Amino acid sequence: MEKIKIDANAFVYPMPMTIVGAVVDGKPNFLAAAWVTRVNFKPPMIMVALGDHHTNRGIEATGELSINVPGADLMEKTDYVGIVSGRTADKSKLFDVFYGELPHAPLIRECPLAMACRVRQTVKLPADTLYIADIVEAFSEERFLTGGKPDVKKMDPFVLTMPDNGYWRVGEKIGAAWSSGKKLKKGAAD
Amino acid sequence: MEKIKIDANAFVYPMPMTIVGAVVDGKPNFLAAAWVTRVNFKPPMIMVALGDHHTNRGIEATGELSINVPGADLMEKTDYVGIVSGRTADKSKLFDVFYGELPHAPLIRECPLAMACRVRQTVKLPADTLYIADIVEAFSEERFLTGGKPDVKKMDPFVLTMPDNGYWRVGEKIGAAWSSGKKLKKGAAD
Repeated sequence: MEKIKIDANAFVYPMPMTIVGAVVDGKPNFLAAAWVTRVNFKPPMIMVALGDHHTNRGIEATGELSINVPGADLMEKTDYVGIVSGRTADKSKLFDVFYGELPHAPLIRECPLAMACRVRQTVKLPADTLYIADIVEAFSEERFLTGGKPDVKKMDPFVLTMPDNGYWRVGEKIGAAWSSGKKLKKGAAD
Repeated sequence: MEKIKIDANAFVYPMPMTIVGAVVDGKPNFLAAAWVTRVNFKPPMIMVALGDHHTNRGIEATGELSINVPGADLMEKTDYVGIVSGRTADKSKLFDVFYGELPHAPLIRECPLAMACRVRQTVKLPADTLYIADIVEAFSEERFLTGGKPDVKKMDPFVLTMPDNGYWRVGEKIGAAWSSGKKLKKGAAD
């Protein structure tokens, strides 16, 4: 098949939807973010890329933020915090907020996974700021775990695709990571 | 429900699987990477976090890399390049490789999306290196597009979950991004 050039403003498929929290002017504020990824296995760190948002002010003033993984039941609220700015709307009452040991990392009780993070390094790009943070604490609930570990099917997170702007569930399991490819090793049976 | 603390080495759910390519010592090499995200909408940039891998040498010597989004049909090969190092195995013949305008960004013809990238900035973390790169060109095929844009259902990418190490397909569509939450705006009908 012939390869064709498409818009260089291409995306990763698919992108995990999260809700980033910070305390801005003494009040928790939240926004939707899909440009987020784990970095650095040990110590465990995470990175989120944010444009110029109200939430950034809180992150930069306190050095703390939260990254929450919502279930599909929170899709509308997640989308809402992505389209309405904390500059004009009070989003502090939208979720049941709790705190761990970081006083400026507002965690969302409704989310199957909530991580409290402390900023380690900030990188300014032409339009975005990258917040690289240590994951200080992570919270879940027994009902989202299997064998003590988060279970994606119980969590029911959702992903984003751009530029078509769709939200999608996670589908069926197709393989085991760091294992499915072993049969391609030289000497392995065909 | 009661919140419980889990291992702070927590992950994002789910993580997009990609294959990162570079030219190392004159030969294309590839590895699997799920710690990757778009950053900076304009100009379009992308970031990948890599531990100490053979591929890093090529990226740092040439300042170029590719990020390829494989379909589920490439799951075994993707996993294989994640478990076998280019230090000990020649992975240059595993895929049908082509090049765009960047001579050191080996693109994978079998992948529904292939991006040629030029490193703009490198951030060293305790264990990982973050490669922040401009997306210079993106390639796909007509059969993976709808209305000229990549169509996630035609691409059939897959995602990773950790620490359970599973690969999963993308499931059903559940909503429209930057739209589903409008009904929560003040003044909107309930």
